[in-house]
Amino acid sequence: MALINENYIKLPGSYLFSDIARKVNEFKAANPSANIIRLGIGDVTKPLPKACIDAMHKAVDEMSDSSTFRGYGPEQGYDFLVNAIVENDYKARGLDIQTDEVFVSDGSKSDTGNIGDILGTDNVVAITDPVYPVYVDTNVMAGRAGDLGSDGKWNKIVYLPCTEENNFVPSLPTSKVDIVYLCYPNNPTGTTLTKDQLKIWVDYALANKVLILFDSAYEAYITEDNVPHSIYEIEGAKKVAVEFRSFSKTAGFTGTRCAYTVIPKELIAYTSKGEEIQLNKLWNRRHTTKFNGVPYIIQRAAEACYSPEGEKQVKETIQYYLNNAKIIREGLAAQGLKVYGGVNSPYIWVKTPNGMTSWEFFDYLLNELNIVGTPGVGFGPNGEGYLRLTAFGSLENTKEAINRLKNIKL
Amino acid sequence: MALINENYIKLPGSYLFSDIARKVNEFKAANPSANIIRLGIGDVTKPLPKACIDAMHKAVDEMSDSSTFRGYGPEQGYDFLVNAIVENDYKARGLDIQTDEVFVSDGSKSDTGNIGDILGTDNVVAITDPVYPVYVDTNVMAGRAGDLGSDGKWNKIVYLPCTEENNFVPSLPTSKVDIVYLCYPNNPTGTTLTKDQLKIWVDYALANKVLILFDSAYEAYITEDNVPHSIYEIEGAKKVAVEFRSFSKTAGFTGTRCAYTVIPKELIAYTSKGEEIQLNKLWNRRHTTKFNGVPYIIQRAAEACYSPEGEKQVKETIQYYLNNAKIIREGLAAQGLKVYGGVNSPYIWVKTPNGMTSWEFFDYLLNELNIVGTPGVGFGPNGEGYLRLTAFGSLENTKEAINRLKNIKL
Repeated sequence: MALINENYIKLPGSYLFSDIARKVNEFKAANPSANIIRLGIGDVTKPLPKACIDAMHKAVDEMSDSSTFRGYGPEQGYDFLVNAIVENDYKARGLDIQTDEVFVSDGSKSDTGNIGDILGTDNVVAITDPVYPVYVDTNVMAGRAGDLGSDGKWNKIVYLPCTEENNFVPSLPTSKVDIVYLCYPNNPTGTTLTKDQLKIWVDYALANKVLILFDSAYEAYITEDNVPHSIYEIEGAKKVAVEFRSFSKTAGFTGTRCAYTVIPKELIAYTSKGEEIQLNKLWNRRHTTKFNGVPYIIQRAAEACYSPEGEKQVKETIQYYLNNAKIIREGLAAQGLKVYGGVNSPYIWVKTPNGMTSWEFFDYLLNELNIVGTPGVGFGPNGEGYLRLTAFGSLENTKEAINRLKNIKL
Repeated sequence: MALINENYIKLPGSYLFSDIARKVNEFKAANPSANIIRLGIGDVTKPLPKACIDAMHKAVDEMSDSSTFRGYGPEQGYDFLVNAIVENDYKARGLDIQTDEVFVSDGSKSDTGNIGDILGTDNVVAITDPVYPVYVDTNVMAGRAGDLGSDGKWNKIVYLPCTEENNFVPSLPTSKVDIVYLCYPNNPTGTTLTKDQLKIWVDYALANKVLILFDSAYEAYITEDNVPHSIYEIEGAKKVAVEFRSFSKTAGFTGTRCAYTVIPKELIAYTSKGEEIQLNKLWNRRHTTKFNGVPYIIQRAAEACYSPEGEKQVKETIQYYLNNAKIIREGLAAQGLKVYGGVNSPYIWVKTPNGMTSWEFFDYLLNELNIVGTPGVGFGPNGEGYLRLTAFGSLENTKEAINRLKNIKL
């Protein structure tokens, strides 16, 4: 009798974005003439950089001729892309990452989800709260989460609150933890850790043999000098941290799909008897056994992000979104709202006014101002009382949204 | 202390293709002028169909304009592709598969590897032997394989020998089994099951609540009427079988990456208490949580395989490879070798002459005729005494290889 993985049936439905869609559709049906501005979803809207478009046209043509056709490539990514990543994202910052420590993939969602494959199910996992839901859900699937309590928390997961009370800087766990997920610049709060703040985590991990899973999908939005672009800027991090990077938010690849994961060879995890094992070797085995590489055409597009024209075009788009973020941040603050993030991030995290819940504030914005945000509580219990707005809309819509916010009645 | 998944360290290295490469390189170094013909690896060589090239150029252009740009798509695949799959691969054959039973992915290697995520670790797994190594390795990683014996077999896996003694038709297991992997047309043997032979397996699965994981990556090579193109041609199969399909060998997508998996809603697996659970729901949850969809551009290429021009171009390429297969099959047989497969498959499975081992025959072909094959023993203990040749070379090289085989001294 074929048996299922029963951890899956512990997972409640994933209703956040479908609930939002339902409410928006109901409002539209009742108010067909309303001009709804969507600042809720974390998806980009600007087209791909021209350098990527040109590179893909060229690569498509290569696939049309036997002499330049590409079949199976290396699962870890073509040298041309891996070398570009190492040179531009690491060596240019003085960081010594080797090509065989980089694994090109189809997305950070896949990688942060699949990394659990090579880790034992007995590890105690810590997450910041609010958090990107994939970290939690994939640990539920693997059996590391335990059971879901009425407080919205899984009883085996250690939650690290990130709220205005601690300025969104998580405290070190007070109980034993084996793995911790850190995402900086953070989704959903848009906040960051400084180098000193991240060093506390690396030192803690080194002292306690804790593995840090560091998601830096929003690295390209960093504008401040004291915010690390890579966790490997912190001494010793190569011994304790995996880093996830993505072209999705950097170069608009959400529908084009390319990312990479760095697993330094110095990074060690343990058998239950304490034997030291290189995670690089285990991930290489997983990556070559359960994955067949990113399309050649897409890898050429990713490579083009590092060309002089590509870099310039990528920066222009990021600057466009950061300008939107500034408009939202300053516009909300001018109305007396408490606003976080949006300086090194495309996400703006707004404290709901007058003690409203996340959903109450969502409903208010939708019904009164025709603006769609994302209720913070959808990202975890400590997201209650906040709402996420994103800078990925058009400049025109962003300005119009802020204009409408001048009519907010608090 | 971060703990690894210790099942990974049970896996021996994966040396088959690196051992082949080493031997070929050593031979080349010693014989620099030799014209080596590679009929070993299962990768295509013909360019993509022109319809796919045209579709990708168009899609690339769409990504360059805000008004046609695509960000995140549905993880399960765009409607345009899912509808084309359902219409052409199923409805056209009279098979009632629904769009929400199809999950577009980046490859059958990923899907056949990842499917284990939603299945319990206590299931007893059966594989045919020889076999595509991913089925075995991913079950080792999940802890379903037990330990590796000196006979090359994992003690918890049930091996179903497929050799010339049973005409490569596996017998039903004699011990309890929960999951069975079937790949037809088969990699590596190139043999098939008829509808009647496959019905025996579906009936067995229905009677014993066994899950069949049916890999039909080579479906496009079927030429004989009594060979099923889909397991769903067999009555009742929707209750017991997952089907994996790929564009890799169909349309030359090995470096372009697109595939799909069908999980009918009628397909049931069980909790340990016997409760019935739809696998479709569990896979949907996995697919949306750990995967972010296939690139829009690539999905347009896959869709183009179903256009009238695309279909014609795909068929021409398949016909080219099948012609190569015929040349190899008939050429080997004319030399008195026993040959299997190659009729409904790009793979030809050769019995080694005079009781040679797989590697002895490999060495003979390399050293004497400068032809590279793949030793059958690399696919499992029951592959010993066989060698796999593939039809994916050029017609010219294939003819030259057969010409050289006329000099074989048995």
